[in-house]
Amino acid sequence: MLLTMRAEKNDIVFRPIGVVRSPHTDPSRTPIQPRYAKDTEGRIEIYPQYEEGLTDVEGFSHIVVLFHLHRAHRARLMVIPFMDTTPRGVFATRSPSRPNPIGMSVVRLLRREGRVLHIADVDMLDGTPVIDIKPHIARFDVDDPVSSGWQERITEEEADRLGRRAA
Amino acid sequence: MLLTMRAEKNDIVFRPIGVVRSPHTDPSRTPIQPRYAKDTEGRIEIYPQYEEGLTDVEGFSHIVVLFHLHRAHRARLMVIPFMDTTPRGVFATRSPSRPNPIGMSVVRLLRREGRVLHIADVDMLDGTPVIDIKPHIARFDVDDPVSSGWQERITEEEADRLGRRAA
Repeated sequence: MLLTMRAEKNDIVFRPIGVVRSPHTDPSRTPIQPRYAKDTEGRIEIYPQYEEGLTDVEGFSHIVVLFHLHRAHRARLMVIPFMDTTPRGVFATRSPSRPNPIGMSVVRLLRREGRVLHIADVDMLDGTPVIDIKPHIARFDVDDPVSSGWQERITEEEADRLGRRAA
Repeated sequence: MLLTMRAEKNDIVFRPIGVVRSPHTDPSRTPIQPRYAKDTEGRIEIYPQYEEGLTDVEGFSHIVVLFHLHRAHRARLMVIPFMDTTPRGVFATRSPSRPNPIGMSVVRLLRREGRVLHIADVDMLDGTPVIDIKPHIARFDVDDPVSSGWQERITEEEADRLGRRAA
């Protein structure tokens, strides 16, 4: 295989374990979170050499998918979030234009067929490289009182409208 | 800088944005999740070139930290989880011995001082390279009924005992 880039000391190199298949092909029309992609179905095709690692995953109703935001624009430190009109620090947002373009979605696991995971609430683009899958474990969820910063000024209705990114 | 490794086509290369400082230095004694590290304080030192990206993060009570499991053992597809005695597929566990050793912790953000984030409920080893920080946004949490697979057979008491990894 041709070597296409060089990594430097301290670089962290990951290799995709699979790929997302979804109906979303246009980044500008893709819902911004699973919550706004309710019932949209898709699948994760895990590469054959990793299939054994899926053993027992079918017992979980939800999985955390970590993926490469492979079509993200170049990183910026200040971004205007989809749901806001004020520039915010990128680490205070879920914007894809991050120094390390890694995405995280908690999706519903409908069923497993061999190395294929059928999922719902899919907010990932078709062709997205998958980096890791972790089970969603209810007892590990945050159970403190929470505050959500600038996100709290946005009403549920507005978040729904903006999050779906419907025409 | 000397080139120390080569990346191949399809490889995903990330560069640390900062480092974790924590009291945990022995992997075998480190709590396995923030829930079992309650009130353990530490900090994330973001590198100067990324400081601007932290703007507004202080409004959030919790942040999601994605990090390199830099001391994980070699990847395995079947693992015996800390809380279980039966081998499970690695993608049905939070084991660090993953094909792509990436960790995820939701920690409490106590305060920000410039490029330093003071955090609590720290389950990360001292010196852990940080890959990304995302705000925890309450409205994006799972609100469906959930099932947690093999984890459901473990009582809260047993999970507490095993999760803390106290002597």
